[in-house]
Amino acid sequence: MVEELFRKLMSGDRRAAARLISLVENDEPGAVEAIRMLHRHTGRAHVVGITGPPGAGKSTLVTALTRELRSRDLTVGIVAVDPTSPFTGGALLGDRVRMQELATDKGVFIRSMGSRGSLGGVARATNDVVNVLDAFGKDMVLVETVGAGQVEVDIVRLAHTSVVVTMPGAGDEIQAIKAGILEIGDIFVVNKADREESARTALELSLMLELSPRGPEEWCPPIIKTVAVSGEGVGELAEAVLRHQDYLREHGLRERKEKERLTAEMLEIINQKVSVAVRRLIREGGPLQDLMHKVLETREIDPHTGADLIMQRLLENGELR
Amino acid sequence: MVEELFRKLMSGDRRAAARLISLVENDEPGAVEAIRMLHRHTGRAHVVGITGPPGAGKSTLVTALTRELRSRDLTVGIVAVDPTSPFTGGALLGDRVRMQELATDKGVFIRSMGSRGSLGGVARATNDVVNVLDAFGKDMVLVETVGAGQVEVDIVRLAHTSVVVTMPGAGDEIQAIKAGILEIGDIFVVNKADREESARTALELSLMLELSPRGPEEWCPPIIKTVAVSGEGVGELAEAVLRHQDYLREHGLRERKEKERLTAEMLEIINQKVSVAVRRLIREGGPLQDLMHKVLETREIDPHTGADLIMQRLLENGELR
Repeated sequence: MVEELFRKLMSGDRRAAARLISLVENDEPGAVEAIRMLHRHTGRAHVVGITGPPGAGKSTLVTALTRELRSRDLTVGIVAVDPTSPFTGGALLGDRVRMQELATDKGVFIRSMGSRGSLGGVARATNDVVNVLDAFGKDMVLVETVGAGQVEVDIVRLAHTSVVVTMPGAGDEIQAIKAGILEIGDIFVVNKADREESARTALELSLMLELSPRGPEEWCPPIIKTVAVSGEGVGELAEAVLRHQDYLREHGLRERKEKERLTAEMLEIINQKVSVAVRRLIREGGPLQDLMHKVLETREIDPHTGADLIMQRLLENGELR
Repeated sequence: MVEELFRKLMSGDRRAAARLISLVENDEPGAVEAIRMLHRHTGRAHVVGITGPPGAGKSTLVTALTRELRSRDLTVGIVAVDPTSPFTGGALLGDRVRMQELATDKGVFIRSMGSRGSLGGVARATNDVVNVLDAFGKDMVLVETVGAGQVEVDIVRLAHTSVVVTMPGAGDEIQAIKAGILEIGDIFVVNKADREESARTALELSLMLELSPRGPEEWCPPIIKTVAVSGEGVGELAEAVLRHQDYLREHGLRERKEKERLTAEMLEIINQKVSVAVRRLIREGGPLQDLMHKVLETREIDPHTGADLIMQRLLENGELR
């Protein structure tokens, strides 16, 4: 069944794409098989992370940016992630409706997702969904996510190009950006730039950026003013994204990012297998029963020593299969 | 030096406590040694997680609750965590000043913390800090954290008793609670209950709680109305916390929670060691050079197969030392 879905995906079947995304997003049976098959066909799309505080107009901007990219004959996948609701399966993304106008364009594929289990889970599920759209042949994959601390950072790290969106007068939001996102933004957008304080917001941003020293060869993040609802400045944003894509290729940085992304992915797979094996060992009792008793009850063994002893047992018995 | 700090901590030295907390929070040299020494003296304190949206009055409530617990002759440790700023070392907890009045009480120890590296990092650092306060002899440790999705959930999971704070008319906040926190709250507080809509907010909460089915023996989360600034209802909250503490003990649930907490701690230690070993192997090149090339460039090997091959190598060579 996965094989058939995969074959259909390769022939451009949108329903197969939707089905495969659900499969990997929810980690359903067959998900690993699907990811294995997809891998050979991934690594081509340019992944753009778009983040910023609620109300900055990210969805409208993503819609307008997609229009610009389409006018340059690029196909676009959109993944809208809301990591703030850890337990709900469905995403609460009301303004996703704004993207409706794109729904009839065969060159665009849109997907909203909530979050999955643990935090690592959100970033990993997003990665898997991006891979489906990559294999589906989309030239650009835009990942939109709400500003939400660490989750946001983890998701943005998946991207080749990170776009940070803010809006005029969002003083606190800029403080928040300063606290975390300034370091990872490749392009900054002041959206709703028809508002009064937009010049000041852009100035504040550029002052902050000047504080982080950059070498002469290094990418200098542009600050772009946009009015997403009218499309103003969005062409410039599209150009900046394409320029950054070129920059990464020319400096061998795309390869480095891909290496880091795949290393992180493999590490997470390994860690999950180790966790499953350890939890099974502990549940089954046996020799670890005594260990747990000494960690938990008598407190003779501390967690670090306990971890070493568990690892030793895993290694000796080859339990990590 | 760690040994001396530890000795001083055991003799009740507050400065040693502060120093040890910094040590484990920032993962400084000696941190592991400190955690090892502390372990034998932990597992006694009752850990209370207090969470809710910004503006719900958590800090004031924590201060008032501390006063109530002190009047019952219990000593209190307070850890205030702000996980929303992943990169800043220092915490941006302005209203921590409200807790100043507690600063002269020897039976209270207050600590603010920002966040550390990865998300797992925040929860783990919090766990380590709680352990210092536990070993320092505090009867109750209150962990206050801002509502921020998954991080919050991870931190709250450390607690024996989880208190979820909301306020009247916070319709959206209740939706957010519904989405994630309802499942893990042991006690719900409607703070600022002198406001008009407090009855309705409490009613909405109780309706939502009724939706989650509970067995006859199961803990039924109370909904408590408080006015933290005047202290109204906070005595009732203190009683509810102590009642939940008894409930856990009587039903053997405290032990189960501790087992889960220590298992999670050991798993994280193991996963970190595995990550370090794998990254070293990849960096060093050697046999993994070829593997990475096949995953990254030719795409012959998918990440799941790659993970299996890396694990096999780790096991064969006993690299996990």
